[in-house]
Amino acid sequence: MQLTSEQVATFLLSISLMLLMAKLFGELFTKMKQPAIIGEIIAGILLGPTVLGMLSPDTFNWLFPSDTSLKVALDGITTLAVVLLLLVSGLEVDLSVVLKYRRTALSTSVVGIIVPFAMGFGLSYLYPQLMGLTNPDMRLVFSLFIGTAISISSLPIIAKILIDLKIFKTQIGFIIISAAMLNDVIGWLIFSLILGMMDAAGHGFTFAETLFLTLFFVLVVLLVIRRFTNKAVPWIQNNLSFPGGILNFILILGFIGAAFTEFIGIHAILGAFILGIAIGDSVHLKEQTREIIQQFITNIFAPLFFVSIGLRVNFIENFDLSIVLILLILAFVGKVTGCGLGAKLGGLKKNDALAVGFGMSSSGAMGIIIGLLALQYGLIENNLFVGLVIMALFTSMTGAPLMNFFLKERKKYSLENLLNPQLTFYTDVNTKEEIIDFLSGIAGKNLKSNSVEISKEVLAREKTNATGIANYLAIPHARIKSSRPIIITAINKKGIDFDSSDKTPSKIIILLLTPLGENELQLRLLAEIVKKFRDKEKVEELLNIKNEKEFIEKLKK
Amino acid sequence: MQLTSEQVATFLLSISLMLLMAKLFGELFTKMKQPAIIGEIIAGILLGPTVLGMLSPDTFNWLFPSDTSLKVALDGITTLAVVLLLLVSGLEVDLSVVLKYRRTALSTSVVGIIVPFAMGFGLSYLYPQLMGLTNPDMRLVFSLFIGTAISISSLPIIAKILIDLKIFKTQIGFIIISAAMLNDVIGWLIFSLILGMMDAAGHGFTFAETLFLTLFFVLVVLLVIRRFTNKAVPWIQNNLSFPGGILNFILILGFIGAAFTEFIGIHAILGAFILGIAIGDSVHLKEQTREIIQQFITNIFAPLFFVSIGLRVNFIENFDLSIVLILLILAFVGKVTGCGLGAKLGGLKKNDALAVGFGMSSSGAMGIIIGLLALQYGLIENNLFVGLVIMALFTSMTGAPLMNFFLKERKKYSLENLLNPQLTFYTDVNTKEEIIDFLSGIAGKNLKSNSVEISKEVLAREKTNATGIANYLAIPHARIKSSRPIIITAINKKGIDFDSSDKTPSKIIILLLTPLGENELQLRLLAEIVKKFRDKEKVEELLNIKNEKEFIEKLKK
Repeated sequence: MQLTSEQVATFLLSISLMLLMAKLFGELFTKMKQPAIIGEIIAGILLGPTVLGMLSPDTFNWLFPSDTSLKVALDGITTLAVVLLLLVSGLEVDLSVVLKYRRTALSTSVVGIIVPFAMGFGLSYLYPQLMGLTNPDMRLVFSLFIGTAISISSLPIIAKILIDLKIFKTQIGFIIISAAMLNDVIGWLIFSLILGMMDAAGHGFTFAETLFLTLFFVLVVLLVIRRFTNKAVPWIQNNLSFPGGILNFILILGFIGAAFTEFIGIHAILGAFILGIAIGDSVHLKEQTREIIQQFITNIFAPLFFVSIGLRVNFIENFDLSIVLILLILAFVGKVTGCGLGAKLGGLKKNDALAVGFGMSSSGAMGIIIGLLALQYGLIENNLFVGLVIMALFTSMTGAPLMNFFLKERKKYSLENLLNPQLTFYTDVNTKEEIIDFLSGIAGKNLKSNSVEISKEVLAREKTNATGIANYLAIPHARIKSSRPIIITAINKKGIDFDSSDKTPSKIIILLLTPLGENELQLRLLAEIVKKFRDKEKVEELLNIKNEKEFIEKLKK
Repeated sequence: MQLTSEQVATFLLSISLMLLMAKLFGELFTKMKQPAIIGEIIAGILLGPTVLGMLSPDTFNWLFPSDTSLKVALDGITTLAVVLLLLVSGLEVDLSVVLKYRRTALSTSVVGIIVPFAMGFGLSYLYPQLMGLTNPDMRLVFSLFIGTAISISSLPIIAKILIDLKIFKTQIGFIIISAAMLNDVIGWLIFSLILGMMDAAGHGFTFAETLFLTLFFVLVVLLVIRRFTNKAVPWIQNNLSFPGGILNFILILGFIGAAFTEFIGIHAILGAFILGIAIGDSVHLKEQTREIIQQFITNIFAPLFFVSIGLRVNFIENFDLSIVLILLILAFVGKVTGCGLGAKLGGLKKNDALAVGFGMSSSGAMGIIIGLLALQYGLIENNLFVGLVIMALFTSMTGAPLMNFFLKERKKYSLENLLNPQLTFYTDVNTKEEIIDFLSGIAGKNLKSNSVEISKEVLAREKTNATGIANYLAIPHARIKSSRPIIITAINKKGIDFDSSDKTPSKIIILLLTPLGENELQLRLLAEIVKKFRDKEKVEELLNIKNEKEFIEKLKK
């Protein structure tokens, strides 16, 4: 069996059409501040049986024939695509962040799984017909699947939303991302076990064997392989061609992991995902390598996969309003209350907890992937698959605005927003007192409060504990009577003595004033400022900049 | 038809094995200063019927079954791989370089095709059985094919050899690369027409129609689409997500071009190659984009393709010594005399012309690709295919050492080799005369000749025509009695007035002394130095460096 020349031509044409439509609609949705994946799936619906198949069945069947080797070739590509997509998602998981916020993250993800899982499982078990179950023998597995589908979150979509809202690298961003990572790992484990229970893969392993092998695999990869790769990565980068050696290493390990999990009766993507975590955890992995893999996979392979979703079923014929509504209600109520409650139990305030709840509600890519697998294994019908895709699209679209609503307060006071070129000055004064007077004067004017008092507070703080930090930075600060925080930046090329730990004079002096009582805010902003000055080279580059706007832009990076 | 779970697992496993073996042997050959492709093909021979198939037929048939949908899925991937490989090869073609060296390049490539083509065609037409022709009806097409296979050069291998020999960006490097690019274009056109004559693709176009459509396609792409993409590239980079937008644009256009050429009865790769040339010609295309595409394709897709070569036939069973010897003789004698003669006619000296001849003798990847297509279309038998692969491997291995032998003289005097940290100095002097005296003193000591005379010569030259160039550079120079050229570099942060065109003082002063009579050498080195100082930002970075070694390293980049 071999592809004929005509099949090769059609194959290339359909791939280019899929990429073209995916890109067009992906960009359109990006412009509308929505995740690109929504546009990519809609592109598939347009190219698939739903629209093109209705308008011109001949063209559709010619481009995407269902019974020739062409379909197999395309299947091969989309299989690779989804495995690579999960490998990249795994690479993005940062275990150290998860560990740092483990309490809140664990409570958010565990409660955030239990509540929606219970709701989804309960409803489907009690009223299986409502969700479209056709084979009564499958009632238990089916209900377990619905529970999982409702409780899964989509790491890539959530990361994208956090980046768009500019809170990716803030405390709440880290909490959400860690919770989403844990959710992914737990969700995939449960789902893999469901597949194992169905003996879907049909490799003759019993459920217990699959369970054991899965846990064994996860532990070996995260405990042994992770350490091995951490040692192997620098060796490969130093001794083999770069970046070719390391690119191959990542893909080879990912594919082997994927093949292994597929063999033991769960799906290939779990293997790719877990290996991605293990490899991505290495601190030696260079940014350039991540960049090449990430860009190629998220821009080429991922769109191909998401477009292929729309090619599989007719979204109009299989649209079932009641299923869609039930899924949406379950997703929102279950995820938001579950994750919100978990976050609150984990120590967050009410508004922040709600923001976390809405942030975690996007089931996005992951919801679609497990929906597709369930469809392929005959566990669910087309109508439920369509419902799951719509649920994924809808929750991905609402995630950002709803989260934004509850974060307004917090966002306003992010370091990002407080750093302002108009509150940045190049000065020439010589002493600590002069510079603090100068900065306090500007702060007083802006906050409409007494500059002299501000100056006094700051100097008092300075006397008890000098605020010079290494790498030319000083952060004089105080808590004052004010309704909002403010940051004023001065750049003084001569340098002023602030008793810094590395004994060098401070050339960048950042005055930080926060409202009385907002202790957490002050500490958070201080920590974030210090973090920006960790890299001495970057600070030296900052000092070479000659205008306020560029300075602040570079500082924000 | 759909891939079963077991097939998916096997598919992933065989791909990871192919990548692993390709990487292992590719790196091994890289370490031995040989092109990686040789290792990749050997990896395929080891995994294929030749070795693994002999040692353990069961394992081989399980990993690479020949009659299931798995083969089709793998076929889909290798088809994509070879199309992408040619797209990247096209991106690397630099039309402006070809235009600049058009006379020598054209004469090298045209004579370099005519001579081996005539030899290959003549021999095969007169003694077809010798080359293993089995179907006498195909005598003409078969002989045309042999002629083409003998005359084709491998752009990627040649580029790799030039980079390894560190002459990629020298005049002779540019001539070889331009000639190789033209050779590729002409060779592929001839080969496409042969396929058209065979009606191999079977789309019912006559030979004349295919010929017309091919020429029409090439002209439209190079004249119209090239201008369109040159305008589209900056628009896409500015308005769509980066680098996602531009990555997709390149792949979509490449696939459409590939699909078109496949439809009109020639092969997909010609379309991808020509579109690659058109897109790569845009000056707006960012380095980062080229990097991502290039790294992913040459490190992942290309190895998959080259490994798959070895999977196709048994290299021991189909080894035919007489065919291999005839092909090797034809390739060496035909290519070296043809290209060497062409280069001589184009104005090169004897040794340089011979270096060009040996440089162009590598048929590498291209020879293998057209061999594979001829095999698939039934034009040649396994034994000739094996012969062509061995010819490609052998010529790729000998290219570098043979070329090096004839370039020894020239290489010694490359800018790369003449720039030396030990001949680089930070100085503080104030006048043009002082710095020239200082540099001449060092030159005199190194060349064991009279410093005072050197200084006089340089100052005389300086009086007739000041040598200050923009961007802080000055290149005082002279032709002197000496057997070899020398370059001495001074960095003077204060700057010295050398009447530079941008009125700024010169801070980097490079003394260039070349032997009397070597006019071309002087001009070449001057041009190469000036080129290194085109980018003002780079020069400013150079000036920030504080030690000689780093300075020269950065300058060489």
